[in-house]
Amino acid sequence: MSLANGRAYLAIPGPSVMPDAVLQAMNRASPNIYEGELHDLTRSLIPDLKTIARTEHNVAIYIGNGHAAWEAALSNVLSRDDTVLVLATGLFCVGWGEVAKGLGVNVQTIDYGNTEPVDLDQLAAVLKADTDHKIKAILAVHVDTSTSVKNDVPGMRRVLDEVKHPALLMVDCIASFGCDRFEMDAWGVDVMVTACQKGLMTPAGISFVYFNDKANAAQGDCVTAYWDWRKRINPEVYFMYFYGTAPTHHLYGLRVALDLILAEGVESVWDRHAILANAVWAAFDKWSVPGGIALNIAKPENRSHAVTSCVATSPDGDRLRQWCEHQAGLTLGIGLGRSPSDAYFRIGHMGHVNAHMIMGVLGTMEAGLKALDIPHGDGGLAAAVMVIANATRGAA
Amino acid sequence: MSLANGRAYLAIPGPSVMPDAVLQAMNRASPNIYEGELHDLTRSLIPDLKTIARTEHNVAIYIGNGHAAWEAALSNVLSRDDTVLVLATGLFCVGWGEVAKGLGVNVQTIDYGNTEPVDLDQLAAVLKADTDHKIKAILAVHVDTSTSVKNDVPGMRRVLDEVKHPALLMVDCIASFGCDRFEMDAWGVDVMVTACQKGLMTPAGISFVYFNDKANAAQGDCVTAYWDWRKRINPEVYFMYFYGTAPTHHLYGLRVALDLILAEGVESVWDRHAILANAVWAAFDKWSVPGGIALNIAKPENRSHAVTSCVATSPDGDRLRQWCEHQAGLTLGIGLGRSPSDAYFRIGHMGHVNAHMIMGVLGTMEAGLKALDIPHGDGGLAAAVMVIANATRGAA
Amino acid sequence: MSLANGRAYLAIPGPSVMPDAVLQAMNRASPNIYEGELHDLTRSLIPDLKTIARTEHNVAIYIGNGHAAWEAALSNVLSRDDTVLVLATGLFCVGWGEVAKGLGVNVQTIDYGNTEPVDLDQLAAVLKADTDHKIKAILAVHVDTSTSVKNDVPGMRRVLDEVKHPALLMVDCIASFGCDRFEMDAWGVDVMVTACQKGLMTPAGISFVYFNDKANAAQGDCVTAYWDWRKRINPEVYFMYFYGTAPTHHLYGLRVALDLILAEGVESVWDRHAILANAVWAAFDKWSVPGGIALNIAKPENRSHAVTSCVATSPDGDRLRQWCEHQAGLTLGIGLGRSPSDAYFRIGHMGHVNAHMIMGVLGTMEAGLKALDIPHGDGGLAAAVMVIANATRGAA
Amino acid sequence: MSLANGRAYLAIPGPSVMPDAVLQAMNRASPNIYEGELHDLTRSLIPDLKTIARTEHNVAIYIGNGHAAWEAALSNVLSRDDTVLVLATGLFCVGWGEVAKGLGVNVQTIDYGNTEPVDLDQLAAVLKADTDHKIKAILAVHVDTSTSVKNDVPGMRRVLDEVKHPALLMVDCIASFGCDRFEMDAWGVDVMVTACQKGLMTPAGISFVYFNDKANAAQGDCVTAYWDWRKRINPEVYFMYFYGTAPTHHLYGLRVALDLILAEGVESVWDRHAILANAVWAAFDKWSVPGGIALNIAKPENRSHAVTSCVATSPDGDRLRQWCEHQAGLTLGIGLGRSPSDAYFRIGHMGHVNAHMIMGVLGTMEAGLKALDIPHGDGGLAAAVMVIANATRGAA
Repeated sequence: MSLANGRAYLAIPGPSVMPDAVLQAMNRASPNIYEGELHDLTRSLIPDLKTIARTEHNVAIYIGNGHAAWEAALSNVLSRDDTVLVLATGLFCVGWGEVAKGLGVNVQTIDYGNTEPVDLDQLAAVLKADTDHKIKAILAVHVDTSTSVKNDVPGMRRVLDEVKHPALLMVDCIASFGCDRFEMDAWGVDVMVTACQKGLMTPAGISFVYFNDKANAAQGDCVTAYWDWRKRINPEVYFMYFYGTAPTHHLYGLRVALDLILAEGVESVWDRHAILANAVWAAFDKWSVPGGIALNIAKPENRSHAVTSCVATSPDGDRLRQWCEHQAGLTLGIGLGRSPSDAYFRIGHMGHVNAHMIMGVLGTMEAGLKALDIPHGDGGLAAAVMVIANATRGAA
Repeated sequence: MSLANGRAYLAIPGPSVMPDAVLQAMNRASPNIYEGELHDLTRSLIPDLKTIARTEHNVAIYIGNGHAAWEAALSNVLSRDDTVLVLATGLFCVGWGEVAKGLGVNVQTIDYGNTEPVDLDQLAAVLKADTDHKIKAILAVHVDTSTSVKNDVPGMRRVLDEVKHPALLMVDCIASFGCDRFEMDAWGVDVMVTACQKGLMTPAGISFVYFNDKANAAQGDCVTAYWDWRKRINPEVYFMYFYGTAPTHHLYGLRVALDLILAEGVESVWDRHAILANAVWAAFDKWSVPGGIALNIAKPENRSHAVTSCVATSPDGDRLRQWCEHQAGLTLGIGLGRSPSDAYFRIGHMGHVNAHMIMGVLGTMEAGLKALDIPHGDGGLAAAVMVIANATRGAA
Repeated sequence: MSLANGRAYLAIPGPSVMPDAVLQAMNRASPNIYEGELHDLTRSLIPDLKTIARTEHNVAIYIGNGHAAWEAALSNVLSRDDTVLVLATGLFCVGWGEVAKGLGVNVQTIDYGNTEPVDLDQLAAVLKADTDHKIKAILAVHVDTSTSVKNDVPGMRRVLDEVKHPALLMVDCIASFGCDRFEMDAWGVDVMVTACQKGLMTPAGISFVYFNDKANAAQGDCVTAYWDWRKRINPEVYFMYFYGTAPTHHLYGLRVALDLILAEGVESVWDRHAILANAVWAAFDKWSVPGGIALNIAKPENRSHAVTSCVATSPDGDRLRQWCEHQAGLTLGIGLGRSPSDAYFRIGHMGHVNAHMIMGVLGTMEAGLKALDIPHGDGGLAAAVMVIANATRGAA
Repeated sequence: MSLANGRAYLAIPGPSVMPDAVLQAMNRASPNIYEGELHDLTRSLIPDLKTIARTEHNVAIYIGNGHAAWEAALSNVLSRDDTVLVLATGLFCVGWGEVAKGLGVNVQTIDYGNTEPVDLDQLAAVLKADTDHKIKAILAVHVDTSTSVKNDVPGMRRVLDEVKHPALLMVDCIASFGCDRFEMDAWGVDVMVTACQKGLMTPAGISFVYFNDKANAAQGDCVTAYWDWRKRINPEVYFMYFYGTAPTHHLYGLRVALDLILAEGVESVWDRHAILANAVWAAFDKWSVPGGIALNIAKPENRSHAVTSCVATSPDGDRLRQWCEHQAGLTLGIGLGRSPSDAYFRIGHMGHVNAHMIMGVLGTMEAGLKALDIPHGDGGLAAAVMVIANATRGAA
């Protein structure tokens, strides 16, 4: 007896649920890549991508995943033997550092573990100690998808300014973009990388590097023809947007995704994610008991609005994931980079998500907890419902 | 602040949620209608349609909706001035009677109201009184979509046999087919009509009339060239399957839908619907308080597994529907044929439905009840969860 | 060695090539059928359907194929034992007559054979002889898909008026609608039936009956609840448009198809079909030699702009069809109702067709004639090209 | 009067016409990227990609276009200050050289102009002169998309072997892969790059680098984490296939495209392209007159089977392109890198192409030549038809 046959729901922390309208826009013949509609469409993406990042600076589009954007960003501002400071709060910032190493760059790391955000005081101390400014850039994640920690990006800028350190502030917003509030210019971010398959609701395959003039001026000897972002902004000929053939179908999909975001309003999109994340947390507040499941990040202000990393008593994380998928039609995300691996799991709640979808996730999880006799407290669903009800009270 | 932007969920009692695989199969060029693949595919549908209806008799496919199937079924067995007995337990059986009237047939009706199933004793009495067997056919609905009542079809056959009445037993399974248990041959049903857009998970547009030899022998003077089912079974030339151009894209979709049902197993499909319906009822058992919302059908054994008709205090039915749609991304069905109309609403849980979808529906509804201050009891979601947990306990 | 692997091209005389935009519009979730977008969309179809038919009268939409529209049209205006006059110029008008017979109506037929249009003088003579006006309706096809003959519909009206016969003029435009010029009101047509899968470029499944006030006043005793067109126009409640569940996905597709036609302009659509048909004929003018292939209809003014019926020496019709499909990726239509069947074939050039597609058809056919050593004259493609060139000379 | 409204046909030299089955496979929800179906599917691609390239060595998949594959290939085998020899027969090999320069590599170029293939004697002379083997790699295109020249790749290997030069033979098969015969191992190619949007019939967005052990051993200091092909073959963890998030939807599409190729057979695919290219050339042989249009490459053995570069008298190239697109529904490719630009144009005939499509292209072009009074000879279409007929004679 399985209750899974129905529309499978994917709640991994990216790729996210793709809107029908995005998929429909991609289900088309190849366009002429040399002139016409595709060129106009591509040009229309740039200002909208900037609007969503709250920046007046530049954005280059790369065919590639987040790792491609990492390498693109680093290649444009570093030289071999430069040093970068990695602020590790999970697997992904460590990964970014590895890409830096691959470029011949020295990597200095502050490891904050897997359950805490960047400690700004510790950051300040390290920067102060770097009196000869060997550190050319700070690499930080806004949200680390593996731990679901959210870092204080404006705080990093404040620290840099306070200690008068010239390092570039480079931020990975792959897991947060279009979900958590992010204001590139107001927050003093020099370089930001993100990708399309999470908050931007477009099938995996393109990524983005935003940069300001300071970053642009930092060009070193790592840059290559393909990664060179200078070629890709305001190009004289169309093919330079992508240095070669355009990712045609993704552009049609992205156009629709951006339209959806702008129609709702960026602030409303952020609010929607905040409320739905709060509903998830409210359920966990009730569910969490010793020996049961718990949130990975203790303080709400340090939690992502897009992904929630969870821990159970091994092997209950895996048991719950398997039950949800095979008995109820819900696919949760595996844990990443944690041990024992069968204790950890993650919930994606990013992009094209609404109250029905999230209550479905939570309701399914609670049924799984009960079916598997995993210890948990009562009232999780009622608490989640109350978050949603309070946020919409009086509306119709 | 709306939490609706995400994948819209349609929980009206049909059309239901279409599986991606069905839609993909329909997203294709027109096929050659004169030979080849389409012919083989069409022929393959017939035995599978019979398997799902538990019959070894005949099925004719019509391009049309349920009303078309009603008229087709009646046209094939009646003559003008014949009499049929309508067993009214909601809007739809009354509608079938109107189609009969339109054929010039006399309609006798037993009206059981909107909240009760067919009373078999009353039926027996009416049949006994029809000593000269004027009644040529009984028209009954297995499930009336408007009231969500489920009638005792085997009981009707038992009554007919007991009173030795030769009337045909004609049953509308439009809302129940592929959801509630139905066994045409074992239950002694002579004619059954259904359609594709509910349990069969295919976009509205084709319908089906099943009939046995007794029904086939009943041909009167109402039959027309288009409705004649004799032409459509085992036709010598392909175009006779549909008496004209085939509904090409629907056939491709239906092929996939039948594959999904048979892969899961008909019994498993019925079980899945039963459990999920029980989850809905369990929530209502907790939610229902005076002045609040309630189920339309009192006894569980009389309730559909595919649709649930609900009543609130006017205008709370409408308020809840509007809130769910505009604040949470869930579209519930309006009430049909009841007054005041803003008190009634319906929940579809038919076809391609799993635990995640149903818990999403119930979670959303409870959030709406709270946001709108509609009176309700606590514990609805926990109760629904327990139904799902118990049904899947020990599974993985 | 086959050259068929590529995009298969379907040149049967309907269903035609569906525009990508139509298929995309249909590739969607089921909509709410009780309120909202679908209702607005449905209402928007009616005036556009009238515009394309050049009428200010009424149109009812049926879920069904052309045969359904035939029965619907007849049911609304006839009584049992009425007489209709069938003007047979191929298989389809004969078929319409059989539907009339199925209603209990007497059918009088003038058979013009398979290669000639309706002879108006003969029609006039028959009508004059019907002095007591037993003939209630004339059933004519505008274009008979089997023979590709095009009949003189305004001429039929002229004859009726001249002989002062009150019979309804009922015309089947299934194969011509959206392809050949048709002006319902100016031509004095009382009832017109058509379907969606040819010039209307929508997957098979819905059909249309147009009627004027005279036809509406003719209601007899054949009408049934399902076919009653009075219910379907200007309905008080939405479900009456389709007397039951709406054909949701077809409506979304049809909306796009009508948009395409109106954006191009009805006159331009007719002109495009005329030129492309002339290109086909020009090729045949050169290809035709004794023992080879030939057009079925001798005079250009009697030929459809949407379909071309062709004849070869048996079995070369079949050989050419098979070669085109298996060696070149082109599916031609089989002959219908002619003997020997392997001598006849048909070419569809209706709806979403452009110069590239038609030159592909003709180029493929000529390659097949040569590969199979079927006798034919030279210069067919050059002649077709010249038709296209002349029609577009000076354009850019 | 335009004859363009119909299915638009894209005959640019890539992206090519995408098969419906490929687009359908991509029109789906995001899959779980952490386990299950996607992992199996990805692994299944590798042996099939090797089969089509006729190699037993390695292939790495990159999210990116052809330029990405260029940089990936170079990065894996070169060090800064290495020298490569570019064999320029059009725009694209020059472009590959620019990517090399961007890596800090010295580029030596032999420019063979835009209408001739690589002269092997001249290559031999240059290699002989490089007595201290500064040249680490030869960069050659199999087919240059801009000129449609096809180079003699086995000849290059022969020359390298004859002069005993150890340089790697690196070949760009972007425009030829899946169209022209290519046998990596038998031809002694060390590195081959290609992309998905031409012969592989998948929307632009992924590309491929093939390499043998010699190339793998050549690793220098240019390699970065993202481009490192060693990580991507036989990875321990799935995400290393793509060094980050997989291009989910492209993989589903590619799977279907490879299935299509293997079902037809690689040799049959090559043969089909050869015949259709010959049909195009046959038309040009008749069309070409002074002042008219002509093929860019004189000798048939030097011409691509996938793309044909053409030249007209300025501005007739542009006039013809515009006419074909706006009057007939056919989009030809612009010229690239030639002056005057309005004299040049290109025809793509790659991937999912059959006789119907190509005859449509040629028929449309001839109509355009006539409509625009561009000088041309007679008999082009008849000549093309004869190529197709001869290739399929006797088949059915």
